[in-house]
Amino acid sequence: MTHILDEINQANDIKKIDSAEYKKLAAEIRKFLVQNISKTGGHLASNLGAVELTMALHLYLDFPKDRLVWDVGHQAYTHKLLTGRKKEFTTLRTYEGLSGFPKKKESICDAFDTGHSSTSISAAMGLVNARELSGEDYRVVAVIGDGALSGGMAFEALNNAEGLHSNLTIVLNDNNMSISENVGGMANYLGQLRTDTKYNNFKSSVENFLKKIPGIGNAIMDKLKKSKDSLKRLVIPGMLFEDMGITYIGPIDGHDINQLMTAFASASKVKEAVLIHVVTKKGKGYKPAEQNPSKFHGVEAFDVKTGENFNSKKDTTYTEVFSDTITELGKCNEKIVAITAAMPSGTGLNKFMKSYPERFFDVGIAEEHAVTYAAGLAVGGMKPFVAIYSTFLQRAYDQILHDVCISNLPVVFAIDRAGLVGNDGETHQGIFDISYLSHMPSLTFVAPKNAWELKEMLIYAGSFQGPIAIRYPRGKAYQGLKEYKQPIEYGKGEIIYEISESLPKELKEMGKSQANKKNIVLLAVGSMVETAENVSRALLGSGHKVTLVNMRFIKPFDEELLHRLAVNHGSWVTLEENVKLGGFGERITGFLMEHNYREINQLNISLPDQFIEQGDVAVLKEKLGMDSESIKLKILEFINSNA
Amino acid sequence: MTHILDEINQANDIKKIDSAEYKKLAAEIRKFLVQNISKTGGHLASNLGAVELTMALHLYLDFPKDRLVWDVGHQAYTHKLLTGRKKEFTTLRTYEGLSGFPKKKESICDAFDTGHSSTSISAAMGLVNARELSGEDYRVVAVIGDGALSGGMAFEALNNAEGLHSNLTIVLNDNNMSISENVGGMANYLGQLRTDTKYNNFKSSVENFLKKIPGIGNAIMDKLKKSKDSLKRLVIPGMLFEDMGITYIGPIDGHDINQLMTAFASASKVKEAVLIHVVTKKGKGYKPAEQNPSKFHGVEAFDVKTGENFNSKKDTTYTEVFSDTITELGKCNEKIVAITAAMPSGTGLNKFMKSYPERFFDVGIAEEHAVTYAAGLAVGGMKPFVAIYSTFLQRAYDQILHDVCISNLPVVFAIDRAGLVGNDGETHQGIFDISYLSHMPSLTFVAPKNAWELKEMLIYAGSFQGPIAIRYPRGKAYQGLKEYKQPIEYGKGEIIYEISESLPKELKEMGKSQANKKNIVLLAVGSMVETAENVSRALLGSGHKVTLVNMRFIKPFDEELLHRLAVNHGSWVTLEENVKLGGFGERITGFLMEHNYREINQLNISLPDQFIEQGDVAVLKEKLGMDSESIKLKILEFINSNA
Repeated sequence: MTHILDEINQANDIKKIDSAEYKKLAAEIRKFLVQNISKTGGHLASNLGAVELTMALHLYLDFPKDRLVWDVGHQAYTHKLLTGRKKEFTTLRTYEGLSGFPKKKESICDAFDTGHSSTSISAAMGLVNARELSGEDYRVVAVIGDGALSGGMAFEALNNAEGLHSNLTIVLNDNNMSISENVGGMANYLGQLRTDTKYNNFKSSVENFLKKIPGIGNAIMDKLKKSKDSLKRLVIPGMLFEDMGITYIGPIDGHDINQLMTAFASASKVKEAVLIHVVTKKGKGYKPAEQNPSKFHGVEAFDVKTGENFNSKKDTTYTEVFSDTITELGKCNEKIVAITAAMPSGTGLNKFMKSYPERFFDVGIAEEHAVTYAAGLAVGGMKPFVAIYSTFLQRAYDQILHDVCISNLPVVFAIDRAGLVGNDGETHQGIFDISYLSHMPSLTFVAPKNAWELKEMLIYAGSFQGPIAIRYPRGKAYQGLKEYKQPIEYGKGEIIYEISESLPKELKEMGKSQANKKNIVLLAVGSMVETAENVSRALLGSGHKVTLVNMRFIKPFDEELLHRLAVNHGSWVTLEENVKLGGFGERITGFLMEHNYREINQLNISLPDQFIEQGDVAVLKEKLGMDSESIKLKILEFINSNA
Repeated sequence: MTHILDEINQANDIKKIDSAEYKKLAAEIRKFLVQNISKTGGHLASNLGAVELTMALHLYLDFPKDRLVWDVGHQAYTHKLLTGRKKEFTTLRTYEGLSGFPKKKESICDAFDTGHSSTSISAAMGLVNARELSGEDYRVVAVIGDGALSGGMAFEALNNAEGLHSNLTIVLNDNNMSISENVGGMANYLGQLRTDTKYNNFKSSVENFLKKIPGIGNAIMDKLKKSKDSLKRLVIPGMLFEDMGITYIGPIDGHDINQLMTAFASASKVKEAVLIHVVTKKGKGYKPAEQNPSKFHGVEAFDVKTGENFNSKKDTTYTEVFSDTITELGKCNEKIVAITAAMPSGTGLNKFMKSYPERFFDVGIAEEHAVTYAAGLAVGGMKPFVAIYSTFLQRAYDQILHDVCISNLPVVFAIDRAGLVGNDGETHQGIFDISYLSHMPSLTFVAPKNAWELKEMLIYAGSFQGPIAIRYPRGKAYQGLKEYKQPIEYGKGEIIYEISESLPKELKEMGKSQANKKNIVLLAVGSMVETAENVSRALLGSGHKVTLVNMRFIKPFDEELLHRLAVNHGSWVTLEENVKLGGFGERITGFLMEHNYREINQLNISLPDQFIEQGDVAVLKEKLGMDSESIKLKILEFINSNA
């Protein structure tokens, strides 16, 4: 049996397909996506929902001349398929493989790199202005989900788009979901537009009536659309957008290619910003995903028949530890409230949500608001926990600094996915948070070594008087070093093992310059304690003297302990899963300089100062020299060169 | 003649005033504000516009029980007057004096600290939820300007406010201005609501008609307001807000205390979020400010009679240098476009705007959008200059990192007000940008020593292939060191003077350990070059050997030069106007450690890691030990202790 998909090997090939075959092609694409993603993992439900929409866009647009900007970008798989990247799908989201997001480097048909939410209208507006100023004539389309529309930046762009005197087509892909269910006034409003058939029928009948008046009807309709008359409100839906100066077309069935093409053609005639409201079904065409689109938003390898994850028996994750602990804390302390930005399951707050719905707040994709909202709750006497991934918390840099830290408010930031996250690549690695948070005055910053310690730190944070951030990595929670359970104490690190507990008094008093270069101390932050433990075992095994410290506090770090260690350790190794610049290691260098520890050498083990591509975390660590073996070798070289 | 204002010495005193006296009191407050601000400087026009609004709020609310959140906060002067801070007005915005913004530390009547825009609805929502969860019954009011409403965060909050089941009163203080004229779809929409008298008359007549039907009319009106019927659109204004689930009341005359009080009372009955649209006149009651509200937004001391600034003859500022240069560059290069977030005059882009209106974009208070919009323009082949103050650029941290740096786009960030800004205090100091920008991969970061160099760096940036940021301070451009005009070269610093140009070959080869501790090198960044020059003269005068380097490039800094200087300089002093953590000095410490320059001592002159209060910049520098004299003494102590 021949596949139509086989005939599509590059951009615009879809235009050669007979329109009678579109349905078959859509089915083939869905089958391709389900089969491939069931093996590689990836974003499934959103891609299944956007098949016909993407096909229609490809029939309408001319690639690479025209510019299509995908908001977030995880729904661009069909776009990749239709632009000659079919064969690469077996490498999806793997090291050096096909990216799960649009990438200019990957294809000339990818107009703008995305990953974080709500950026598409801004970028597309820039392209529209650039087109006009350069006297070019390509088309510009932004595709944004209803979830992404809750991000303030999308509103800033919509608000600004009013001034455009040139076509910008915004496709609102409304599937009534972000990762989880959508929240907020805009979502409700869209729901109303989608479902108010009476309203839409009335609109259609007026339009049809007007169209029937030969020659004049369309003109009246146009005039009405342009008028400010309140009568307009009776016949035009989407007034919220119209009120803001954006022409509204819709709602359109997002699985009907003809309807979509007609809408694109109408939109292109408007010399300003037009929003086409397209209604799609997330997960469409694959039953398990239709029934549970949230579960199938992002998946690992699964059984196509059952929809079940192959590795259903999983190790406990840090997210689960957070989930359980915050729920437990909520029981004892009624002041505790929890805030998520559209990620109740991703952050693990869903359990808290079920137990204390009145103290749980999902603000939608709106990280800035989430943080200042928490500041307001704190001023009102509550104890807010804000759970946001490291990479997304970047969006609230100013709110943390300006609204929480200046007023020294007791807000807890639970920063999941800190460090390398793997397959999502450059846009999602949580490798900057130490750099962007640790210079904020009044902020305390900690990282746990294992599952037990995350729990303890959360309990500690629950009664902490001031802003405190806890960073912990994606995935499996480390269960080792279980026997090291010193209570969490402000600004104190934990010694896992030490070369010598008792030093001669005179050495202690001397305080410096007597450190033995061969004595190594590993100062490890959070996830790197596990690695450091492996490294230290290897070093001890080969006869080196090693002290291992779990720093616990990134800020303020344990200066007293460091002074003590300086007495007899000449080789310091700092380890962190963060870029080097602005990281923990630099802080320790500063400490050594400030206190004049000239005899001490430091090796800074951190991520290189670059954006880090996609790939399995273990693969990336090896490539970047962040695995135990590479670090051991670096340390040996470091010791020898300084000997 | 007695003054009513004399009777108001604490919160709630205004309630004792006879309502017949309100007009007189408003006039007295205006006179007080004009007279005081004419001496101290401060925010004038916005405060004059909010006099009756604030009076009405104080008549309606019960302080300190009720919570009033001022967006931005520069319009809260009347609030300060009415809560017992009259006498402190002579110290307004001075060191240890009255703050120009709400401050919880200053008064129990200030509910939430503000400074940056668009935060009030988020914070107030937090207070509302806290109230409900604690079973308390205070009222919560947010006052937000129409300018601040263009910030995406305000939209995120409005979108989220839909879910509230408890009263949140949002007062939209609409004066049709932010600092300059407002832009965008929302501003146009508000303008329509304000001015469409036909529309409002129609609404009133429907309401009046309904009210006349005894017993039933009000019920019909209420039902209509709650309905989703499209007929509602005919009689209810503010549908944009209503569509988002926010009850709309307005427009209300913001200078009519009775109308305001009635609106507050109506609003308080609604058990959800209510927006009261209040129309005010910026600068009201003082002719020069009414006529030119933008000029009188923030002022220095001025002549009350003429409205003229006392120091009208001013030194050239860095802003002016930027203004002239970008306009000149725009002439030669048609690809250059300029973007501001509501600050055409503040940033100096007004000149470019007049010359090249089609290449100038004011996006409103929307820093996030501004940056990603620039990214879109860059992808479209333009050369965007984004001019945003250091403190406000904090809001676009993620957009710079995610939308500009990952794709290595040629966007220029012109960062004005970098370093201490003075009288606006904690919320506005530009003292974090080195820390939050210099760890971003692919970003180049420079700072000029004087007016000439800012111009040169802008020209350099104009043809730079990649993201580049230029930081320069508020106020007067340094005109000294005019004779030092080495061309700007990538990653290269500039030697102002050097102890020894020719070193023995063997010393150069040795490369380290031979550095003379008494030889001092000052490594200064941007504004600190001027200070360092003063310091070095004083040191040279007292017989020390000093090399002075203008770093120019914060990132990448001139490693080649540093290696050369390491040969014969044992004492390194880094100078920057940024907090220490994550700053330039730490980077140099890292360099010394990495390259094993053990004999070199470093003194890090930077701002302390704390929020820095308000005050004249010169006063602050002295208090913080950042003036030439303090630095000289620190250096002498440093040299002696390391000798």
